[in-house]
Amino acid sequence: MDADKQAVTVIGLGSMGSALATALLDRGHPTTVWNRSPQKAAPLVEQGARLAATPGEAVAASPLVIACVLDYDALYGVLDQDTSALAGKTLVNLTSGAPEQAHEAAGWAREHGADYLDGAIMTTPPGVGGAEVMFLYSGPQAVFQAHRPTLAALGDPVHLGENTGLASLYDAALLGLMWSTMTGWLHGTALVGADGVAATDFTSVALRWLKTVSVFLTTYAPQVDAGRYPGDDATVDVQIAAIGHLLHAAESRGVDNALPELLKTVMEKTKAAGHGLDSYASVIEVLKARKEQGQ
Amino acid sequence: MDADKQAVTVIGLGSMGSALATALLDRGHPTTVWNRSPQKAAPLVEQGARLAATPGEAVAASPLVIACVLDYDALYGVLDQDTSALAGKTLVNLTSGAPEQAHEAAGWAREHGADYLDGAIMTTPPGVGGAEVMFLYSGPQAVFQAHRPTLAALGDPVHLGENTGLASLYDAALLGLMWSTMTGWLHGTALVGADGVAATDFTSVALRWLKTVSVFLTTYAPQVDAGRYPGDDATVDVQIAAIGHLLHAAESRGVDNALPELLKTVMEKTKAAGHGLDSYASVIEVLKARKEQGQ
Ligand SMILES: NC(=O)c1ccc[n+]([C@@H]2O[C@H](COP(=O)([O-])OP(=O)(O)OC[C@H]3O[C@@H](n4cnc5c(N)ncnc54)[C@H](OP(=O)(O)O)[C@@H]3O)[C@@H](O)[C@H]2O)c1
Ligand SMILES: NC(=O)c1ccc[n+]([C@@H]2O[C@H](COP(=O)([O-])OP(=O)(O)OC[C@H]3O[C@@H](n4cnc5c(N)ncnc54)[C@H](OP(=O)(O)O)[C@@H]3O)[C@@H](O)[C@H]2O)c1
Repeated sequence: MDADKQAVTVIGLGSMGSALATALLDRGHPTTVWNRSPQKAAPLVEQGARLAATPGEAVAASPLVIACVLDYDALYGVLDQDTSALAGKTLVNLTSGAPEQAHEAAGWAREHGADYLDGAIMTTPPGVGGAEVMFLYSGPQAVFQAHRPTLAALGDPVHLGENTGLASLYDAALLGLMWSTMTGWLHGTALVGADGVAATDFTSVALRWLKTVSVFLTTYAPQVDAGRYPGDDATVDVQIAAIGHLLHAAESRGVDNALPELLKTVMEKTKAAGHGLDSYASVIEVLKARKEQGQ
Repeated sequence: MDADKQAVTVIGLGSMGSALATALLDRGHPTTVWNRSPQKAAPLVEQGARLAATPGEAVAASPLVIACVLDYDALYGVLDQDTSALAGKTLVNLTSGAPEQAHEAAGWAREHGADYLDGAIMTTPPGVGGAEVMFLYSGPQAVFQAHRPTLAALGDPVHLGENTGLASLYDAALLGLMWSTMTGWLHGTALVGADGVAATDFTSVALRWLKTVSVFLTTYAPQVDAGRYPGDDATVDVQIAAIGHLLHAAESRGVDNALPELLKTVMEKTKAAGHGLDSYASVIEVLKARKEQGQ
C-alpha cells in the first residue's frame, strides 16, 4: 500500500467488482471491500484488501466508495442497511442501469450528504486496468476532477458531462453499436464461411475494414449535426443497389438474412423520405424521434 | 511518365474509374483510358492520360487492363466489341458483382487468352491512392504477384486466394458489416441526440469503443473456427439482460427500435439453441447455413 494513494472502498465483488478491486490493489490503493457473499473477498484479502464486516463499515473506511452490484435493487438493498457514514463521501456507482435510475441515485446520495458520480464500464472484467479502456462518468465536474487520479487505476476515465444520466445513456447506445457490429461481423463470417473461409482469415480483413468504416463515421457525424447529408462519396441509392449482392450471395448459401433484410428496409424508408441521393448518414432521419407537430 | 513504370489501361471513367486513373497518373504510370462517354476523359487527358478511340485500342495499349464500369452487362458490352487484343494481357476487373459473375468473367478472359484477377475496392473514390485503403483481389497468385507493384498505386493490394469469387464474396460480407455498424451507430446517435448530445461528441467516444469491439472480434474469431464459445467474458444471457436497457431508453425517447428488437430476437434464438452461457460468438450458430440432415 502506498501512503500517498487514496483509500478506496469497493462494494460488490462479482466478476466485475473483483476486477475493480484488483486493479486498485495493483496500483497500491489501500482498498476495503464488502460483498453479500463474503467468501468472494478471499482472493482480494490475500492481495492485501481489508474485508469490512458490514456495508456501513465499508463506507466508513474510505472517502471514495465504488459500488458495482447486479442492479439498482441490489444497490439500495446494500447501501440502505446503514447510511450513517455516507455524509462527506463520494459514491461512484458503476452498476448498470437506466439514466432515470442514475438521476434517482444521485438524489438519494445527496439526501445522505454524499457526492455522486454515475459510471459505465466499457470493457469486460479481463480488460479492467488497461490504459486504453474507457470508463465513462457523468455528474459534477469538480467531483470527477477530485477523484480522477484514483479512477485512472481502473482505465481511462472519460467525463461526459454534468447530466448524471449520460453515462448510462452512452452505455446503452454503445452496446447497441457493439451488438450491431458483432452481428454484422458474424453474418459476414457465416457468408464467407459457407465458401470455406476461416473466421480468423475474414476477421483480419474485417478489422482493417472497420478502420475505414470509422473514417466514414468521422465524415458523417458532422453531417448529422448539420442535418445535411451530401451524398458525394456514396448515396443511399448506391447502397440499396449494393445490398442486393449481399442478400443474393447469403441467400444462395443458406445464411439467415434477417439482419440485411432489415437494413435494406431501413435504406428504402430513407429513400422514400427523399434521401436517395444523400449519404448514408441521412438514415438517422427515419430512426430519430419525430418532433411533435407544432413543437 | 516514368519509363520504368508499367503501362496501364483503365476502362470506365465514372467516379471510381476516374479516381483509379488519377492515382495511376500520380504514380507516373503511362495510362491509357476509355469511357463510353468520352468527355469524362478530358480532366485525365489534361493530367497526361492518352484517350483511346475504341475499347479494342484501349486493350491493345497496355499489358494490364483495369476495368471499372457499372456492372457485368456494361463490362461485356464494352469488351465484347473487340476481343482481338486480349491475348497475353491481364484483365483486372474492379466492377462490383457476385462471385458467380467473377467466375464467369475469368472463364471468358481465359477463352480470349487473357489472365484474370477479380477485385473489390474497399473505399469510396476520394480514398483511392491511400496506402491504408484495401483493394481485395482473388485469382492466380502468380498473376497477382506480377502486377502487385502497379496495383499498389491504387491502395494496399490484398490477395485473398486463388478462388476467383473471393473478392466479391468478401466485398458483400464487408459491406454488410459496414451497414450494420453504421446503422447501429446512427441508432446510438439518435438515442443520445434525444438528450441533446451532439453526434460529433458521441462519435469520438464511439470510435474509441469500436477499437474495444475489435478486440472482442479478435477473441471471438478463433471461437467460431473451433465451434466452441466459452462465455467467460460475457454471456448471451448477460447481453439479453443488457439490451433491455437499450430498448427501454430508446423507446421512451421515441427512437425507432427495429434494429435492436431484431438483435434481441437473434440473441433469444441463440439462447433457445442452448447458448445462453456461451459468448456472443455463438450467435453464428443461428445465422449460418444449416447442414442438411444426414450430410
Ligand atoms: N461483467 C461485465 O462484463 C460487465 C461489464 C460492464 C458492466 N457490468 C456491470 O457490473 C455490474 C456487476 O456485474 P458482474 O459482472 O460483476 O455481475 P456478477 O458477477 O453476477 O456479480 C453480481 C454482484 O452483485 C451482487 N448482488 C446481486 N444481487 C444482490 C443483492 N440482492 N444484494 C446484494 N448484492 C447483490 C453479487 O453479490 P453475491 O456475490 O453475494 O451474489 C455480486 O457482488 C452489473 O451491473 C453489470 O451490468 C458488467
Ligand atoms: N463509387 C464508389 O464508392 C465505389 C466503391 C466500390 C466499388 N465501386 C464499383 O465501381 C463500379 C463503378 O462505379 P462508379 O462509382 O464509378 O459508378 P458511376 O460513376 O456511375 O460510373 C459508371 C461507369 O460505368 C459506365 N457504364 C455504365 N453503363 C454502361 C454501359 N451500358 N456500357 C458502357 N459503359 C457503361 C459509365 O459510362 P458513362 O460515363 O458513359 O455513363 C461509367 O464509366 C461499380 O461496379 C461500383 O459498384 C464503386
